[in-house]
Amino acid sequence: MSEPEKSENIPDESAGEGKEIPNGGNPAKSREELELASVFVSDAQYNRNIFFDTSPRAVRLYLLYHRWFLKVLLYFFILVNLSLAVFEEPAVFPLPLWATMMVELLCLLAFSFRLVHYAKVIPPDKFWKDPKNICIIVILMLTLVDMIIYGALKATNYYALRWSRVLRPLLLVNVTEGRQLRRAFRSIRNALPQIFYVFLLFMFSVLIFSLMALKLLGKRGLQTIDGAPYFTHYLEIVFDLYVLVTTANSPDVMMPAYNASFVFAIFFIVYILINTYIFMSVFLAVVYNNYKKYLKEEVRQLVRAKRHKMVRAFAVLQEVREEGGEPVVTQANWNQVVRLVRPNIDNAHRELLWSVCDDKNQGAIGKAAFVQLADLLNIEVITLKSRPHPFHSLCPALYLSAPSRLLSRMVHHRAFVIVYDIIILVNAIFIGLDEENPMIANSEWVFLALYLLEILLKLYVFEPRTFFSRHSFWNWFDIIIVVSALIATIINSAVKISGGYTSRQILDIVFILRVLRLIRVVDSIERFRAIINTLIRIGPAILTFGQLIVVVYYVFAMVGMELFKGKVKFYEEDSTDPAKAYCGNPLLRGTAFAQLNYCKNNFNNVVSSFILLVELTVVNQCSGFATVTHVSARIFFFIFHILVVIVIINIFVAFVLEAFFVEYSVDKSDLHTSVERKITELELALEQYVTMTLTLTDYLQMFGRIPVYFYTFRYRTVDALLQRMFEADLDPEDLAEDDSPEAQTGRNFGNPTFSSV
Amino acid sequence: MSEPEKSENIPDESAGEGKEIPNGGNPAKSREELELASVFVSDAQYNRNIFFDTSPRAVRLYLLYHRWFLKVLLYFFILVNLSLAVFEEPAVFPLPLWATMMVELLCLLAFSFRLVHYAKVIPPDKFWKDPKNICIIVILMLTLVDMIIYGALKATNYYALRWSRVLRPLLLVNVTEGRQLRRAFRSIRNALPQIFYVFLLFMFSVLIFSLMALKLLGKRGLQTIDGAPYFTHYLEIVFDLYVLVTTANSPDVMMPAYNASFVFAIFFIVYILINTYIFMSVFLAVVYNNYKKYLKEEVRQLVRAKRHKMVRAFAVLQEVREEGGEPVVTQANWNQVVRLVRPNIDNAHRELLWSVCDDKNQGAIGKAAFVQLADLLNIEVITLKSRPHPFHSLCPALYLSAPSRLLSRMVHHRAFVIVYDIIILVNAIFIGLDEENPMIANSEWVFLALYLLEILLKLYVFEPRTFFSRHSFWNWFDIIIVVSALIATIINSAVKISGGYTSRQILDIVFILRVLRLIRVVDSIERFRAIINTLIRIGPAILTFGQLIVVVYYVFAMVGMELFKGKVKFYEEDSTDPAKAYCGNPLLRGTAFAQLNYCKNNFNNVVSSFILLVELTVVNQCSGFATVTHVSARIFFFIFHILVVIVIINIFVAFVLEAFFVEYSVDKSDLHTSVERKITELELALEQYVTMTLTLTDYLQMFGRIPVYFYTFRYRTVDALLQRMFEADLDPEDLAEDDSPEAQTGRNFGNPTFSSV
Repeated sequence: MSEPEKSENIPDESAGEGKEIPNGGNPAKSREELELASVFVSDAQYNRNIFFDTSPRAVRLYLLYHRWFLKVLLYFFILVNLSLAVFEEPAVFPLPLWATMMVELLCLLAFSFRLVHYAKVIPPDKFWKDPKNICIIVILMLTLVDMIIYGALKATNYYALRWSRVLRPLLLVNVTEGRQLRRAFRSIRNALPQIFYVFLLFMFSVLIFSLMALKLLGKRGLQTIDGAPYFTHYLEIVFDLYVLVTTANSPDVMMPAYNASFVFAIFFIVYILINTYIFMSVFLAVVYNNYKKYLKEEVRQLVRAKRHKMVRAFAVLQEVREEGGEPVVTQANWNQVVRLVRPNIDNAHRELLWSVCDDKNQGAIGKAAFVQLADLLNIEVITLKSRPHPFHSLCPALYLSAPSRLLSRMVHHRAFVIVYDIIILVNAIFIGLDEENPMIANSEWVFLALYLLEILLKLYVFEPRTFFSRHSFWNWFDIIIVVSALIATIINSAVKISGGYTSRQILDIVFILRVLRLIRVVDSIERFRAIINTLIRIGPAILTFGQLIVVVYYVFAMVGMELFKGKVKFYEEDSTDPAKAYCGNPLLRGTAFAQLNYCKNNFNNVVSSFILLVELTVVNQCSGFATVTHVSARIFFFIFHILVVIVIINIFVAFVLEAFFVEYSVDKSDLHTSVERKITELELALEQYVTMTLTLTDYLQMFGRIPVYFYTFRYRTVDALLQRMFEADLDPEDLAEDDSPEAQTGRNFGNPTFSSV
Repeated sequence: MSEPEKSENIPDESAGEGKEIPNGGNPAKSREELELASVFVSDAQYNRNIFFDTSPRAVRLYLLYHRWFLKVLLYFFILVNLSLAVFEEPAVFPLPLWATMMVELLCLLAFSFRLVHYAKVIPPDKFWKDPKNICIIVILMLTLVDMIIYGALKATNYYALRWSRVLRPLLLVNVTEGRQLRRAFRSIRNALPQIFYVFLLFMFSVLIFSLMALKLLGKRGLQTIDGAPYFTHYLEIVFDLYVLVTTANSPDVMMPAYNASFVFAIFFIVYILINTYIFMSVFLAVVYNNYKKYLKEEVRQLVRAKRHKMVRAFAVLQEVREEGGEPVVTQANWNQVVRLVRPNIDNAHRELLWSVCDDKNQGAIGKAAFVQLADLLNIEVITLKSRPHPFHSLCPALYLSAPSRLLSRMVHHRAFVIVYDIIILVNAIFIGLDEENPMIANSEWVFLALYLLEILLKLYVFEPRTFFSRHSFWNWFDIIIVVSALIATIINSAVKISGGYTSRQILDIVFILRVLRLIRVVDSIERFRAIINTLIRIGPAILTFGQLIVVVYYVFAMVGMELFKGKVKFYEEDSTDPAKAYCGNPLLRGTAFAQLNYCKNNFNNVVSSFILLVELTVVNQCSGFATVTHVSARIFFFIFHILVVIVIINIFVAFVLEAFFVEYSVDKSDLHTSVERKITELELALEQYVTMTLTLTDYLQMFGRIPVYFYTFRYRTVDALLQRMFEADLDPEDLAEDDSPEAQTGRNFGNPTFSSV
């Protein structure tokens, strides 16, 4: 977590250049060379910054290291390791100690294997210089030590503490794949100094206001609603006013003073204005400003590293065709590398990419054109051969008959969408009505039939492979929801008829599926679709923040469980235990915490802890825990609030702001434009969004024109989105640090002097 | 409020050009011409867009119209008109109806006078085309009609409603001086369509979640803490979940479901994630994006209008010195115009500005140089002759003696500041301690003496006029706080000694002053000073938002008072009325509202209403009012929340964000640089912040060098700050729409080809 990426971002020039990379006029490249080049290209494409050994054996191991199943396995073990908290003391589902210990050992073993694999791939000096490897080793060692101590103490019945559990989420941060997460942590670390000064000023303001409150209100003999003395103790006031910033105790904290005189309300209003509105905006401004500044710098380094890797791939593949000429890469080698990088790439797509690179049709490309390959591979070009509908092939007479065509026109008509939107709305009303009524209950079958009919009609009219293409989000959504609802409803009815009762769980699922179906109506409205698409597009990056939150929550949950477990007990609704009224802790007798029935908000197991931490993120209400332990317990909640609400939530808001601006304002980048232009030149039909547009009518119109390309602008990785975010701000000269003439012309890659094929 | 500014921003080309503006080779301009030109320049400087009549009589009236006392009078009457709510039914301080009516009539009369004055200044067709004049006339008429109806109904003892009070704050928006406020309203209006679509999607999400909650939780027979059925009524759920977005009822709304099963907590967590975090961020993103976009466009128009006015002023002043030469403005005319625009301008400052304009020292300037005058006047150049200290003149031998010099060096030393910071901190601890203790009480005199000594020492060492200059914020702050504290403490002691008791009010003031003194410590820390200075600089613009909030609050307070007055009563602490337990309304018996003693949160008078609206802005807690009237009363609170929290607070945050970025990132503008360069060329000493830097030692070093200029970068108007905010984004070609060669060269005004004097 501390400075782990520096070595990754700035490529070490000496690492690969020292090697004897085969070069010269030999026409066919060896398998090893092609693999090496493809590794460079794919590293550039995914912005990986690993200085692997370039020996053929290491390259093979490196390719294995990046195989998807090994990554899935790694994340599976991380997940298992993290979820051990559910089974360990204090457990949701208690398991014997030896079982959790065995599983944890297995996880440690898996992490060690992965680390050894990584050590085999990269040179030893690089391995030991990388803080994240050291970090993993230290975590593994500490965990092992802790397990031994804990096991020994438990075996001898001493009090023992599993302190190493706090380290578990750090594995998520330090594995090779946690790049996005490390970046998020770095942007927090970078913003910290600036936040710190604003925070000091903010705390100074809180302290001054508290002192004023003490002087103004402390001597008036006012009482809180509980009859306790009001604002008589300085640190209490500081804490109350800090909580007021989170708006959790507004207006309660102000009422005793306001009841005494309305003049005191002015004090609180000024306080809220300055500390809640102005300071919180300034926090956001500072975080956002830092976030933008450092991210720009990081993206610049990413772009530089990517370029460097592509140059290395070029060095492997290059050959000189004529004496004294520029080194080039031939189409044959290029094709093989692209096939190695993306084995499932379509021939048509590959040819399109080649024709974008080799715009002069010379059968070979120079360094400048080659370097763009990594970016070209990141543009998702959806290639679709205009296949006729299977019914068309099977039974053309019937499929092209007048009734069939009429049906097709109907389904394509705007009215079809409107009719189904109305059906959804009617369905919404029926869902809202009482389902005890048999008429309403049966209507569900009608709606299910209507939705099934819609799907079948669409399948009849649209080509199935188009309909089920990976990017047809709403089609997949429809089918999954409708089919699941159908299955759940049938099971529910079957259970009901056979046993005469309704299973609550199945019914819940049926209800959720029914309501989710209504979301579909959003897709019909253009404006809504635009907002939803933006949200979906920034979704993966939001997941990074999700990981960040999980890491922070996990650490706080572990600490919180050690501090507060068993202090507050929850009794079931039907319990008659008198302790229920005060959550099983006499200290809580008569407190607001017990009166509001917050007993389930406790740290008694990891699930409750996580839910409580979410509640604390929304509203920092923690008086109960200070009551059952000690006033200093507030420090725990105070640190949590600063870290999560002031730092992480603000970075999250900053990210959403920036991502939205990009979606709103940035047009297609140069590279997109050049692909688009190329496709136009090749006289191919263009569609921004292919999903529902490739229709029977289209086939009938365009019949015979094969292949047809459709492409959408979609970024495959979060890095690509980030890069796009700062593309406009990046100084082109920064990128062209390689001063060779090819590199210089490379900058003009997307300019309008593009000639025809 | 609706489209009022369009006519202001795009200058009507035909308006002034059609007039016969005196032009020719005559050397001395008449008084009328100079006045006309100065009006154009000052309009350009302050970005006023009023198409006044250019006849000498109208110009005189126009100058009168902008005199400060008339503006103060206008704002005084607006304030009186607004504060009538304090005295009208339901009143804080009841006055008889005839008294408030008379005052209101007086206000209406004042507004009418101001409007008639305005009508005399601008051409009639312009007057009637301007929506804000029409708006004022309509408001005045409606108010008059309402007053008559109300008076008549009251006289005959019928129920009457003063509905026109809602219109009062609109006067604040529609007076000529409310430009900033109108701009804020425009940016809200512009953002509305985009916000509306996001809001619809947000509401759709709330509705879907509510439906799901109804289906999942409605049939389980759960109960809230009050024993009421939980989540059984759809609209109740919608409202509860909407309130959850404001975090007001978290975690209470979730507890019954969470107590039933922790699985339901997931439902609420997903809801909070989507609606509180993602949607609220999207609202901010949309508002911020729109704000930036439209403000940029407005500033562009402002700059264009300013340029146009300066060109008109040039046309009035211009003369052709040689046959066929370019028209120029002579220094004599220029001087007179500048003197008319800023009568209190210093000669040295004026000469500096002239030398910046007339960089070739030709005694006359062309159009391009002249046009920059409006911006030059907006740069605050603090001119200070390096005057010796009065003591120095009076008694040089003593003042320059060794002890005096030592004293001066001491005061200048960094240690002096540190010593006083330590004194302040010690003082803070003493304030925190119990003031009943006589030792502590007497220590106050010691601290007061120390602070007084500090001020006296500084006055001895620093030149008084520098010390008291307009920009020495902290010096003024110190003196006011210390002297007030001294006076208040003396009065307090006198009262105590004479009567033997302590006046609570005076003591409160003493306490506040004592605590405020501690703020001074902030100024010693460089980082804090930077943040505070930024806040002070964006202060005036924040005041615009203050006005906006007052307008919205006033309207809601008036409506709220009509809807809810007298429904909730507040009983004093010592009241023994049994109705006190339920705020005087049996409907509130046993509700959380009454239990938490929120009785003073009511709409019974305008002051309570304002305080309640602030509370509602922080946390939207309104269940009590729905209980005492009708469930539909929630609509009032719902609209208030949307308008204030979603729209206005977001625009406020957007403004603070943008202003902070500008302060962080934008360097000095071209114009500043040119002034700075000029000053450097003139070999004048430069100091960014003059306040505390002009010292005795400096005098001794620089003795004999008179005059010395010091200047700070400070923008005199909010417009100038806004302009600076978007300066970097403005396309220079947009500004140079005037295609004359002078206008073209005007763009190069601040470039490095500046020659020496």
